[in-house]
Formats: sequence, structure tokens, C-alpha cells
Amino acid sequence: MCAAAIPDIIIGRLPLYLRALSKMATEDKEITSSQELGARLGISSAQIRKDLSQFGEFGKQGTGYNIVFLIDQLRRILHVNQIWDVALIGAGDLGKAIANYGGFLNRGFQIVAVYDNDPHKVGQPAGKYIVRATRNIVDEIITKKIRVAMLAVPASEAQGIADQLVKAGIRAILCYAPTSLKVPEDVRIQYIDPVLHLQRMTYYMP
Amino acid sequence: MCAAAIPDIIIGRLPLYLRALSKMATEDKEITSSQELGARLGISSAQIRKDLSQFGEFGKQGTGYNIVFLIDQLRRILHVNQIWDVALIGAGDLGKAIANYGGFLNRGFQIVAVYDNDPHKVGQPAGKYIVRATRNIVDEIITKKIRVAMLAVPASEAQGIADQLVKAGIRAILCYAPTSLKVPEDVRIQYIDPVLHLQRMTYYMP
Repeated sequence: MCAAAIPDIIIGRLPLYLRALSKMATEDKEITSSQELGARLGISSAQIRKDLSQFGEFGKQGTGYNIVFLIDQLRRILHVNQIWDVALIGAGDLGKAIANYGGFLNRGFQIVAVYDNDPHKVGQPAGKYIVRATRNIVDEIITKKIRVAMLAVPASEAQGIADQLVKAGIRAILCYAPTSLKVPEDVRIQYIDPVLHLQRMTYYMP
Repeated sequence: MCAAAIPDIIIGRLPLYLRALSKMATEDKEITSSQELGARLGISSAQIRKDLSQFGEFGKQGTGYNIVFLIDQLRRILHVNQIWDVALIGAGDLGKAIANYGGFLNRGFQIVAVYDNDPHKVGQPAGKYIVRATRNIVDEIITKKIRVAMLAVPASEAQGIADQLVKAGIRAILCYAPTSLKVPEDVRIQYIDPVLHLQRMTYYMP
């Protein structure tokens, strides 16, 4: 198994499989098939079998996939069989909404610190967190050994903060700002872009 | 050209191409190649050529793609060569952040009304909008002929609101709540799920 050899587009589908399987598990299902999973996700069963086969043999021909087993395997592959500490930067409306989002912990992530550079926000609550001053962020992230960050700052500030995060050892950044960031090659970056989703729907609308 | 025959996974990549090309256009580039586009997006050039060939002949072998032309074509294909009116439901922290998001209008969308069912929020500002009462939403959406909605309400309220939206003629819903919604087959739904992006990054982190 050579991680570097598997295209990122396949990696991008694994969290979708994990989410759908976790949903099935809450429905008390035990076994599923690539057909059923594909029907839920709008992905062909052949694609799903091919994607999963990159990582091993998870189901038997004709008997399907054991849901709990496949969830465990996907969590292991995606490294979310542990909880990642996450720094959230930005305590405006969006940052507060993210701080209050309930969907992180049972899927491998927990926010451990919220930062803002606005002196009116520092020391105030954002969800269950007390907002910390961004000026101390590099030292604090190093001390706390945080490697994942979410960026909910204005587009104009995003690159400056990203540079500090990289310096502090952050290796994965989820950026909510509508901008493109430059980071070193060994730092992963993903963007939340609502327009990508909207355009994917208007295609179907005459 | 038969829309129904093109897999949704391909449709999902077109907005990525459009965004990358729009970025190139701001860099004053005129021509690009499937190799260059692929390198920016982490998608193989063969995949890009195959995806685009579903919709016609947009570039010549050896000369590459004219960026402005390809942007126009993708806008036409995705139906964002027009501005879609959008209803935003939810004027909490997240709703306010969405109402203030600057990235919609130049990519085909404009929020025209913001709704909330909290009497303390109704009549108050959310960005440049005045929050309207959700109880009138069906009539107002019908009157305004709105067909696209963004849902930024608590997970427990999302299905009830979605049912009303569908009744009002909404045909595309972008849901920010961490839940799965049931909608009729002719209604499109997409979810903003930050964890999908986080998990796609932790895969690469030992």
C-alpha cells in the first residue's frame, strides 16, 4: 500500500463513504453493498469497489460489506480513529457558528482554541471557548502541538494568518475565506466554497 | 447533448474548473492547457479533457484552451450566465456570516431575502438585509419566484423548513446543518460539511 500513489480524488471520496456508512450504522443496518452505497451517493458501484480495493479487501463477492468493519477501516485509513486538536482562527459570525457546530467530535476533530485579533473579541466567549489573542498564536500552537486549523477570517487577512500557522507547525488548513492561499507543498489546504455546491445544482435547473 | 447522461461526479468538477479559470483570468492569462489546469487542481489532464469533451470541443490539440471562451462556456453549461435569486433561511451567527459573504454575486447568485423564525431577529439587520419572518416564507418565495435556497438553521429545524421550501417551489437547497434531508427527486440538495474536507487532509498526516 503506497499512499502517494493513490489519486487525491479517490481520497476525497472516502469521507463520503464513511459518512454514508455511519448513517447506515445509525439505521441499525449491518451489511451493505457497493450498489446500495452507490445509490445513496450517486456514485457507480464499480467506482466504489475500485476505490476501496486500493486499500485492501473489505468485502466478499456476493456477501457485501460489514458496515461496522468498513467504518473502522475507513477511520483508520483517514486517520480519524483518533481525535485531532484543531485551532479556529476568527471569532466573527462565522467563527462563532463553527465554534458551536456539533458535528466535529464524533468524526475525529475537536476545536481546542479560538483566536481573533480584535481586542473587543479577545477574552469574550465564542461558543464554549474564550477567544484568545492572535498575536500569541505561533507559540501557543507550537506548545499545544496543534496540526489542524480552520480559518474564518476576512479574505484580506487570510494569507498573513496562514503564514503564521505554517510557521507554528500547522499541516492542514480548512479555509472559509473566499480566497486562494499559498502554502508550502507539505501543508494541505481545503476550501469551503458554497458557490461550488450552488453551481453543481443550477446545472440541472433549466 | 443529453444532460441526464452525464454523471453528477463530472458536473461536480465543472465549478472547480470554472473557479480555476476565473482565477487565471484575473492573472491576465489568455490561454491554458489541460496540463496546467490539472496541475492547479490536482486532477489529471486526461480527466479534464474527458470531462470537457462531454460538452463539446473547447480547445484545439496543441493550442490549448482560450480562458475567456472556456469561462463563458462553463457559465452557460452551469446556468450561471445569469444571476439566481437565493433565499437564506437562518439569521443566527452562520446566517449572518453567509449574508455578509462577498463571493456570491460575481459567480451567479444573489441573496434576496433572509428569514428567521425568532421574533427577536425578525426586523433586525443581517448584513444588508432585514430579517423576515419564516411564517410567511412559502407565499413570499412563490411571489418572488425564488428557486434556490440556503439553509442555515439548527439541524432539528432543517427538515421542517425544507418541506416548506419545496412546497414554495425551491428546486435547489444548500444545507449547512449537519443532517440529511429528505426532498423529492426533482429537488437538488447539497451539503456544506467541513468534516469531509478535514478528513481528506488528515489522510495525508501520519
